[in-house]
Amino acid sequence: MVRVGIVGATGYGGAELIRLLAGHPQVEIANVYSSSADGEGLEKTFPHVAGLGLPKLLPIDADSMSAANDLIFLATPAGVSAGLSPQLVANGVKVIDLSGDFRLEKGEVYKAWYKKEPAPANFVEQAVYGLTEWNQEQVAGASLIANPGCYPTATLLALIPLLKSGWVQPNSWIVDAKSGVSGAGRGVSLGVHYSEINESIHAYKVGSHQHTPEIEQELQKQSGVETVVQFTPHLVPMTRGILVTAYGQLSAEVTQAQIQELYEATYADKPFVRVRPAGSHPHTKEVYGSNYCDIAIHVDQRTGRVVLLSVIDNMMKGAAGQAVQNMNVMYGLPEKTGLPLVPVYP
Amino acid sequence: MVRVGIVGATGYGGAELIRLLAGHPQVEIANVYSSSADGEGLEKTFPHVAGLGLPKLLPIDADSMSAANDLIFLATPAGVSAGLSPQLVANGVKVIDLSGDFRLEKGEVYKAWYKKEPAPANFVEQAVYGLTEWNQEQVAGASLIANPGCYPTATLLALIPLLKSGWVQPNSWIVDAKSGVSGAGRGVSLGVHYSEINESIHAYKVGSHQHTPEIEQELQKQSGVETVVQFTPHLVPMTRGILVTAYGQLSAEVTQAQIQELYEATYADKPFVRVRPAGSHPHTKEVYGSNYCDIAIHVDQRTGRVVLLSVIDNMMKGAAGQAVQNMNVMYGLPEKTGLPLVPVYP
Amino acid sequence: MVRVGIVGATGYGGAELIRLLAGHPQVEIANVYSSSADGEGLEKTFPHVAGLGLPKLLPIDADSMSAANDLIFLATPAGVSAGLSPQLVANGVKVIDLSGDFRLEKGEVYKAWYKKEPAPANFVEQAVYGLTEWNQEQVAGASLIANPGCYPTATLLALIPLLKSGWVQPNSWIVDAKSGVSGAGRGVSLGVHYSEINESIHAYKVGSHQHTPEIEQELQKQSGVETVVQFTPHLVPMTRGILVTAYGQLSAEVTQAQIQELYEATYADKPFVRVRPAGSHPHTKEVYGSNYCDIAIHVDQRTGRVVLLSVIDNMMKGAAGQAVQNMNVMYGLPEKTGLPLVPVYP
Amino acid sequence: MVRVGIVGATGYGGAELIRLLAGHPQVEIANVYSSSADGEGLEKTFPHVAGLGLPKLLPIDADSMSAANDLIFLATPAGVSAGLSPQLVANGVKVIDLSGDFRLEKGEVYKAWYKKEPAPANFVEQAVYGLTEWNQEQVAGASLIANPGCYPTATLLALIPLLKSGWVQPNSWIVDAKSGVSGAGRGVSLGVHYSEINESIHAYKVGSHQHTPEIEQELQKQSGVETVVQFTPHLVPMTRGILVTAYGQLSAEVTQAQIQELYEATYADKPFVRVRPAGSHPHTKEVYGSNYCDIAIHVDQRTGRVVLLSVIDNMMKGAAGQAVQNMNVMYGLPEKTGLPLVPVYP
Repeated sequence: MVRVGIVGATGYGGAELIRLLAGHPQVEIANVYSSSADGEGLEKTFPHVAGLGLPKLLPIDADSMSAANDLIFLATPAGVSAGLSPQLVANGVKVIDLSGDFRLEKGEVYKAWYKKEPAPANFVEQAVYGLTEWNQEQVAGASLIANPGCYPTATLLALIPLLKSGWVQPNSWIVDAKSGVSGAGRGVSLGVHYSEINESIHAYKVGSHQHTPEIEQELQKQSGVETVVQFTPHLVPMTRGILVTAYGQLSAEVTQAQIQELYEATYADKPFVRVRPAGSHPHTKEVYGSNYCDIAIHVDQRTGRVVLLSVIDNMMKGAAGQAVQNMNVMYGLPEKTGLPLVPVYP
Repeated sequence: MVRVGIVGATGYGGAELIRLLAGHPQVEIANVYSSSADGEGLEKTFPHVAGLGLPKLLPIDADSMSAANDLIFLATPAGVSAGLSPQLVANGVKVIDLSGDFRLEKGEVYKAWYKKEPAPANFVEQAVYGLTEWNQEQVAGASLIANPGCYPTATLLALIPLLKSGWVQPNSWIVDAKSGVSGAGRGVSLGVHYSEINESIHAYKVGSHQHTPEIEQELQKQSGVETVVQFTPHLVPMTRGILVTAYGQLSAEVTQAQIQELYEATYADKPFVRVRPAGSHPHTKEVYGSNYCDIAIHVDQRTGRVVLLSVIDNMMKGAAGQAVQNMNVMYGLPEKTGLPLVPVYP
Repeated sequence: MVRVGIVGATGYGGAELIRLLAGHPQVEIANVYSSSADGEGLEKTFPHVAGLGLPKLLPIDADSMSAANDLIFLATPAGVSAGLSPQLVANGVKVIDLSGDFRLEKGEVYKAWYKKEPAPANFVEQAVYGLTEWNQEQVAGASLIANPGCYPTATLLALIPLLKSGWVQPNSWIVDAKSGVSGAGRGVSLGVHYSEINESIHAYKVGSHQHTPEIEQELQKQSGVETVVQFTPHLVPMTRGILVTAYGQLSAEVTQAQIQELYEATYADKPFVRVRPAGSHPHTKEVYGSNYCDIAIHVDQRTGRVVLLSVIDNMMKGAAGQAVQNMNVMYGLPEKTGLPLVPVYP
Repeated sequence: MVRVGIVGATGYGGAELIRLLAGHPQVEIANVYSSSADGEGLEKTFPHVAGLGLPKLLPIDADSMSAANDLIFLATPAGVSAGLSPQLVANGVKVIDLSGDFRLEKGEVYKAWYKKEPAPANFVEQAVYGLTEWNQEQVAGASLIANPGCYPTATLLALIPLLKSGWVQPNSWIVDAKSGVSGAGRGVSLGVHYSEINESIHAYKVGSHQHTPEIEQELQKQSGVETVVQFTPHLVPMTRGILVTAYGQLSAEVTQAQIQELYEATYADKPFVRVRPAGSHPHTKEVYGSNYCDIAIHVDQRTGRVVLLSVIDNMMKGAAGQAVQNMNVMYGLPEKTGLPLVPVYP
């Protein structure tokens, strides 16, 4: 049994990790940590976990955490992991960081988009970007995983095959993303007030969202082509789910069937990516509570563009689910271990 | 491995059974049936099950169904099971019926509330009412389970202990229930049109809902006391969840602590009933996607009443989850086998 | 033109007053006030009012407010009006207070339920409870209106006729109320976080909500009968709307038709109360954005109870709409002046 | 008083017209028509209009309709107006058609995108496209108005100024649109089932939505430049509201300030278009229930693109509100007559 610790257990990312790991056959939830730990049980914060027999919340402390766990998940706000993970890794603990602290290779890019000090460069260097389907080998040998952001996951799984194919003009990509509110976390603010969000949709951070450089960096790493992406996130009145609608200008005479075939071949042996039949319009609900990314391809002959539709559950493939998938790979377990097979529908 | 068949697999009850049974370690989903079967895969109706390798949909036929399955779940509209289940049971197949056809012991009561012909009396007689926590022994030996209704499940688990205690006037019970829309099934009508339901709440079938006699019958069976219940269901703008708010007039000098103790003792060894701490207000979301029933007790000294709050996921403990729980008991498996341990939150 | 001032203009009650008064033909919105005034325009807080030419936000100050307005609406949290209104009234300004500070006649009752110091007794005494349909004459001559609470409005309009009739046992009333989230105001807290509220329903303050004594006091004043009410509020995943489901034990042989007739007669000349046909189940959406209270009556012969259904828009008849209705009565204007005739549907 | 008739009064467009016209000071709702008229009052279909004293529903008949009304609004499905409007216009009645039947100038284009027979060419020719802000003079003199589609309204008001400026490459426009469900009308189908829509978002009709040629035709008419637009609609779990996120490739060195200035100048005297301050992210809720179109401009220097955000209430500026605005212009009334000044918030 792998002894895992969860840091940030009183947030939504932590809650989802607990949901998955409590049922994982090879894992023991050894410890749960929170900056607001007060010696109480987690069920005071999250009544839904009552009766699970979880350990009491502990305060965050790198040394005692290193002794008591084999692997630690960090589901903490930006800036926390930058300080904490290096100590844990140095102490020989494996770390899967769900925040953005180790995703961007260049410190100055992190600083520019996150407005925070970057993590130590040598640790950033050894961190593996945990987009499981594309970095499986590196993940298997990693000590420190930078678990991908929710928007980048849905975007990259959709764009990488086409970008590698050379069939689309690299700088033509426009990524219009729509997310449920849980992605904003459990912190309170007017921006997540029910009466402000319900019956409304709006864009935010147009041209300035911190997931933009993450998408561009990984597209370049996977395809070898430098790419500038136009990325716009939107907040949708729902709790979970991300839909990415991505537009690319075709640079070659290519048909729907060819692209469809490319995607089906690419993801044939990837259990969590489902290429939907041509003409599909995936609903985010169709992956709710699961680790799937469903992708549909639409070639618009009239405009010479390809429109990609990609849906994930932001708490799952966009956060905790992919983190557990990475853990499975790190420990040589079957990729699907402990992950729900079927979305919650309706 | 138990070979199970699911009838009504293109409805919501069927979808939830598939979610649970696809991950059940002792079960093989041998067959799926639908009155609208057309030889296509289920993923045409439900894209969320793509990639599971489920069998193709078959038409409903008692004889071929009997040969190909050890146990059959019927997730069909009222009236279907009344005709089908007797044949299946006669052929030696175990049946768990999620509809109301075998729940009411008296044919004339069924007729009066359902406005349909009742099932054959001898089969109704041998059917066991599958409220697992209260009928566990009978369930273990049953061939035909009448799986309880969603509202009755949330109501009975909350009321039975107090009714048995004699501390409440039996005819004083008022049950004000609130349900998500999935309980109405997948059929289309103006009553489930998004634009009519969203941003609105309303009562329906005041004084005439068919779950009323089911509640009264089972209260009497468990407590020996004849009880008339005032039951009002409401439709809430959400997909899943039922909250029952039940009001009883205390007939004795009894304290919050005494009732709290009674409930904690009653359900101490029942893994799916969680008695919440005194003063709690359970949210339906706190049992979302799980088989739990969470109950909170409020004694109002000012009015001399007890107010019970009881929440379930109507698709789970109110339908498919309890059905699987009953199957586990029928096959001598641990009660929790194949059922999610942790609700989906948020 | 009546020069009105709105205090608490950056809250939801203030926003709704602006919506109504900006289109009111006999009113000039002379001033808007907020404790968080910073000399900026209101459109910084509420972009939806951009372009209306509203005055800039001013800080709260009793003397300058008295000089600059004929009438002041107070849409402020409990405790503010208790201090402010006496000064305004003493200065000769009319006041309509949307908070609970002047509703409860007995200071000790206010203190017990609100956990705050009550307003000065002599001002409480001269305040008129602004349930327009039942206190129209007193409202016409009032200087200080205690505008009713949202739950009490929906409850009282439904219960008063029956209580006056003597057909129901006074202490048998159980009021199960369901509200949208806007009633909680614009302040941020986990309790109004979108991800916590969406896809969930829960009761709160069982047996302890501060609207309970308000309901009991007014029932007694209107009917002469002392009444203890069991009141339970619930939070529903919607922004606007209240549904009250009220249960009373009939003490007389009385038919649906008799009660129906009583209500139709009682409210025949009241433009904002619509008695729905027998057997109706009003949806809160059917009064959305309007000042109506729709009431339906269900006599359940089987149980000997009457079930009343009453719906309002909590921001309108439950707050700002009734406040404007009261203002119209105070100034001798037709009751409907400036109030929308038709709900926003869907 | 203008005697108006409303055809399709039992649909959502009809309901919204009634809301507006019942309060319009220069209009009498003379008649309401429906293909499902049965001599009953409209309140049987729409309880929310009870008490308004509306006329009884009449069946659709061109001749009697011509005699009894000065102007007729057609809020009917595609294909109805094509047959009905020519008769009405020939009889001298003014017509405002909310369907798409008279919007597309070329019959073969209509046929290709609507899969229906087009309206008679000579009537299509005399129809005026009622985008009020851009065709005010023609609207003033029109007998037959083709009221714009919901998506085209939000799109055109945002794109026209930039297209006319020449600052954007015409064929670079990508229009990613998000709509509430009411736009789909009141007809029942699985596509509007609450449990399917709630907690989910999806694209539909990628590359094939019938509003695409309408947008392209009007862009060309206003700017003189032929334009191919990539248009993708999405269904969002909300009842009302459209957000258009539009992307254009800048072809010139142009700043945020220049474009901002252009828009503010263009719409300075248009009461229903509000150009939001630079950096704004309009929420659809901020125009809820009103006739506004709020537009925000974002120049992304990094990518060389402009991102336009445009929000409307699809039932208002996207349908009934703009129809009433057009009626006002046709009768020489102030444009805002009878239209709500302030959105319903929250």
